[in-house]
Amino acid sequence: MGHVTAVYQIIAKREDLEKKAEGIALGLTVGSWTDLPLLVQEQLKKHKGQVVEIKETGEDPSSGKTIAQLHIRFPGENFSKDIPAILTTTFGKLSLDGEIKLLDLQFDDEIFRYFPGPRFGIQGLREKLGVYDRPLVMSIFKGVIGRDMDYLLAQLREQALGGVDLVKDDEILFENSLTSFETRIKEGKKVLDNVYQEKGHRTLYAVNLTGKTFELKDKARKAKELGADILLFNVFTYGLDVLQALREDDEIALPIMAHPAFSGSFTSSEKYGLSHSLLLGKLIRIAGADFSLFPSPYGSVALERDKVLKVKEELVKESVLKPVFPVPSAGIHPGLVPILIHDFGKDCVINAGGGVHGHPQGAKGGGKAFRQAVDAVSRGVPLNEAAEDIELQEAIRLWGWKEAPSN
Amino acid sequence: MGHVTAVYQIIAKREDLEKKAEGIALGLTVGSWTDLPLLVQEQLKKHKGQVVEIKETGEDPSSGKTIAQLHIRFPGENFSKDIPAILTTTFGKLSLDGEIKLLDLQFDDEIFRYFPGPRFGIQGLREKLGVYDRPLVMSIFKGVIGRDMDYLLAQLREQALGGVDLVKDDEILFENSLTSFETRIKEGKKVLDNVYQEKGHRTLYAVNLTGKTFELKDKARKAKELGADILLFNVFTYGLDVLQALREDDEIALPIMAHPAFSGSFTSSEKYGLSHSLLLGKLIRIAGADFSLFPSPYGSVALERDKVLKVKEELVKESVLKPVFPVPSAGIHPGLVPILIHDFGKDCVINAGGGVHGHPQGAKGGGKAFRQAVDAVSRGVPLNEAAEDIELQEAIRLWGWKEAPSN
Ligand SMILES: [Mg+2]
Ligand SMILES: [Mg+2]
Repeated sequence: MGHVTAVYQIIAKREDLEKKAEGIALGLTVGSWTDLPLLVQEQLKKHKGQVVEIKETGEDPSSGKTIAQLHIRFPGENFSKDIPAILTTTFGKLSLDGEIKLLDLQFDDEIFRYFPGPRFGIQGLREKLGVYDRPLVMSIFKGVIGRDMDYLLAQLREQALGGVDLVKDDEILFENSLTSFETRIKEGKKVLDNVYQEKGHRTLYAVNLTGKTFELKDKARKAKELGADILLFNVFTYGLDVLQALREDDEIALPIMAHPAFSGSFTSSEKYGLSHSLLLGKLIRIAGADFSLFPSPYGSVALERDKVLKVKEELVKESVLKPVFPVPSAGIHPGLVPILIHDFGKDCVINAGGGVHGHPQGAKGGGKAFRQAVDAVSRGVPLNEAAEDIELQEAIRLWGWKEAPSN
Repeated sequence: MGHVTAVYQIIAKREDLEKKAEGIALGLTVGSWTDLPLLVQEQLKKHKGQVVEIKETGEDPSSGKTIAQLHIRFPGENFSKDIPAILTTTFGKLSLDGEIKLLDLQFDDEIFRYFPGPRFGIQGLREKLGVYDRPLVMSIFKGVIGRDMDYLLAQLREQALGGVDLVKDDEILFENSLTSFETRIKEGKKVLDNVYQEKGHRTLYAVNLTGKTFELKDKARKAKELGADILLFNVFTYGLDVLQALREDDEIALPIMAHPAFSGSFTSSEKYGLSHSLLLGKLIRIAGADFSLFPSPYGSVALERDKVLKVKEELVKESVLKPVFPVPSAGIHPGLVPILIHDFGKDCVINAGGGVHGHPQGAKGGGKAFRQAVDAVSRGVPLNEAAEDIELQEAIRLWGWKEAPSN
């Protein structure tokens, strides 16, 4: 049946650590132990949680208490192999119990088997696009709330003409009478097919799948039927298991882009909630998204670089599950491409909103500037020396640029 | 179309508050404003977010920055009337943006109309039980992981014989071969019917509804068919919209008990996430649970009293939606009944695990002690003077008791 090992950070008095760890291992499994008859202990042995490790990692400056990592192993016998059951077991009642944060869930292969991982993953998406040797470039619709289809389609065309690989809906665009889900798919497809015929460049469109939970599957199947490319999904306002269900439905079979909306509610505190790498990395991957968006370390809505790199690591590291495209987001402009490629390698999506639309030549110029920056980095040319790349030079004049660190 | 007004707590420099508020009101709606042509402004007016109020409430001691409440009004035109859309709009990207906490969402009546609220509520549950004039008493199964049906049923019988009104499953009991969901419902029902025939006392059993999201409705309908009394549901590992879907399904039509497992991930930080009153109070109510469990202010897993009372207030205050039974949980023993009734009134559920099972006479004695304590308070008798209540006196000797404050 396998095991899940939960890694917690707790802040407690040093002398309480062991008792605390034992309390979790028992309290979240068989309840009690030493007072049980031997015969019952024998029967319950395979259900008992185990303290695997207690590691002191620091001191909380404000309280003088010890910061420690507890590793507790939960037998797979105790829970069904779904994310809600695993979260309830490892961090249900415990999430309410003082200064404790769930840093990681380590699944053994027997548990992994129950989870699908991405249907397409990095390689599958590259095959759809025919782009193998560079990061993908994505741009986001801007200011489309309250606007009509003409406006939206013109923006889509401009973005595609700039040569971006992906365009995503604004995550706050819901079902509405001006630009309905089905119309966006159908009309968006025509625009992108036209650009492909004119320019030979293929852009995929991630359409925002929204509405009531139990209507999502039908809506997603309809999207598939209408020729949608990718589903954008605000997974954290629904539930990771809903993402998994969309992934597992063979009649949907579309790539899924997980948006981090609302995830800050779980991840922002240093003392509570879940780590970024667990929520936006590992759990998004086991549930089966093909892309995971998360705050970049560069912009104003920034996340610390080491945390971001841990998210990326969870998305792409060697596993029985396919890797997920990391999409560091917010504050990205063309001048950051060298450092982005340094930090994330070629297997990432370079994603920009303002950095595309804010270009002096508009979204088309912005997309071109990004593609030029990506090409310059591949050729080993410093961005400011790619003189023939007009749009890139304009972007650099506006936003500046940064050389990647040499390490 | 109505409005939702979001109330945020932010920590920022005083001089940045207004810009920050405007940034939210625009950034989460139409995107920009002053640079738009007048004609477009006219068109987008009904989609534009509005800063309603900026209120300074304190100073953050660690940074010297200002703590403030921002009230921002979001037009209903912008989102579909479901919880995922409302959370994505008001606290999607924004949850990732520094020290910000969502304290409240204020719905006007037009928005309220889209949400069901509890199917039964306090009055409906009282009618099921025929108990109108006192708090209900609930106890929780203890140490049932890995145990068989005989063990579980014997425990159920003991609890019912003590006179508790409700028994709930352990929230970490999932589908398993020893005590399956359907068997628990069928066999549990027999046990409780027997107790009713023997003693004339009716106990309802809240069975844990678990598994994959898209299987829950079928499972719940089956539960209804088999005669289940109440569904226990770990809503926060699924999603509030899943709770709403279970509530809205007329073929299920069972009372739902919302368990707070995993909710600490959202609510524990003072600076991030959601307030307890919003998550465990208001949102649980609009989504339609009949009971909401939350940490009591008395036990070791304690929550501050003022926060707990705000949760209760959201569950029971005057509204177009039925009131929800507040279930303050953890650390409850019979000696706390006077203070519980003082804090929560008669419309609450007194819920105990250890305070029932740890009684010297076992669960039966524990249940009796709670019922005796409730009766003593109704009669205005101090617990230690209810000399004829043997089980209560035993409980008091073990755990002590507290008189309610006189105010
Ligand atoms: Mg956006
Ligand atoms: Mg429990």
